[in-house]
Amino acid sequence: MRTLKLTIAYDGTNYVGWQRQANGISVQQRLEEAFAPLFAAPGDATPTVAGASRTDAGVHALGQVASVTAEIDLSVIAVQRALNVRLPPDIRVTSVVDERPGFHARCHAAGKIYRYRMAINSVLSPFDRAFVWHAPAPRDLAVMQDAARAFVGRHDFRSFQADGSVVRHTVRTIRRLELASPDGEIVVEIEGDGFLRHMVRIIVGTLAEVGSGNRSPESVAGILAARDRQAAGLTAPAAGLTLVSVRY
Amino acid sequence: MRTLKLTIAYDGTNYVGWQRQANGISVQQRLEEAFAPLFAAPGDATPTVAGASRTDAGVHALGQVASVTAEIDLSVIAVQRALNVRLPPDIRVTSVVDERPGFHARCHAAGKIYRYRMAINSVLSPFDRAFVWHAPAPRDLAVMQDAARAFVGRHDFRSFQADGSVVRHTVRTIRRLELASPDGEIVVEIEGDGFLRHMVRIIVGTLAEVGSGNRSPESVAGILAARDRQAAGLTAPAAGLTLVSVRY
Repeated sequence: MRTLKLTIAYDGTNYVGWQRQANGISVQQRLEEAFAPLFAAPGDATPTVAGASRTDAGVHALGQVASVTAEIDLSVIAVQRALNVRLPPDIRVTSVVDERPGFHARCHAAGKIYRYRMAINSVLSPFDRAFVWHAPAPRDLAVMQDAARAFVGRHDFRSFQADGSVVRHTVRTIRRLELASPDGEIVVEIEGDGFLRHMVRIIVGTLAEVGSGNRSPESVAGILAARDRQAAGLTAPAAGLTLVSVRY
Repeated sequence: MRTLKLTIAYDGTNYVGWQRQANGISVQQRLEEAFAPLFAAPGDATPTVAGASRTDAGVHALGQVASVTAEIDLSVIAVQRALNVRLPPDIRVTSVVDERPGFHARCHAAGKIYRYRMAINSVLSPFDRAFVWHAPAPRDLAVMQDAARAFVGRHDFRSFQADGSVVRHTVRTIRRLELASPDGEIVVEIEGDGFLRHMVRIIVGTLAEVGSGNRSPESVAGILAARDRQAAGLTAPAAGLTLVSVRY
């Protein structure tokens, strides 16, 4: 038995998200289907391809990481090629390496970096439409940066968790939250040890409201203290979000 | 009557090209449909929206220019907004201005800039798949740049015109042909007074063959002199090509 670590890039537009679901095609399903003919014992049940992040429908990845444990008699280069031949062009395996037995992409992830792109100009480029949140309004980058500082560190992020989540332990550490403003955009990059469901998107939605003057940068501490989803801002749309990389 | 000059960006993936055709939806058709309710005399036949470049199926535009002459009782900002509300998100009008009577986007175009993107690394990014030619092979940028110099200036480009074209006057002037090699790509930017059908794509296809060692940079002069499509290289795929801007 071998344990392989895959790095995967995908355009999430046409998927229900990473995880297998009954209501549509997931990235995980496409990967498991691509893997099926590669196993040395093809009669066996297809092993699970476990992803580090359960990205939502429409969320993209530059560096999703997944692990799979199975009997495979191929070099890592041959596995990568065989998967990419079978996968649709909106999912690409960018690397395959052998890992130590027992490695699990989700359980052993030590941190993740996400990037969120907001387009703030009035006309949305047709080339960006699947990859940004089009939120055309004046945004004050400096006050958004003020607000961003309040998120960094170890906090209870219950106010920034999707309603209905069953996760009980809601303390997470954000190591870095940086905003930049390239041409016509605001780009948020966030690094943390782990993220609750919709956490990045609710943080971005809240920062957007700060940027347009509807909340003060000082309000963030109170939102965190409230431990109540209703205290925070809207959930920014999935299309703007990309999982950049996973740290182990 | 007013004459408006529109600047238009589009993702050409889902269109048969700029020009109206019986076999599918064109960018021109979508624009003319979006214009129809804006005319002051709606019973009249819809005026033609004339584009500067007849981009092929799958070719993109950052700065296509089009002209239309009609009775329209709206400010240019209101026209732009009304068009963008009606157009699908893969076509955006980025500016509308009033022009002198008689202005015609195609007839009066004095020059155009096109960009062509080749991806040369082995795994094609899912985010680039509709916007590049995936041609994974070692390419020698320096010899491609040598070959590019031979195209610049006033030449008969008959060898670089699609078979079956009926254009008789095939002399064109290329002002600039530059190659750059950002991460994993070769990007060709070409500026000229006008271009024959498929001319940019055949030039790129020929440069690609030079880059992989299948033709010498010195062969370009002979290909031009041959005035024969068979002398030149392959026609690079449409997806890699973008009309960047039109000069008047």
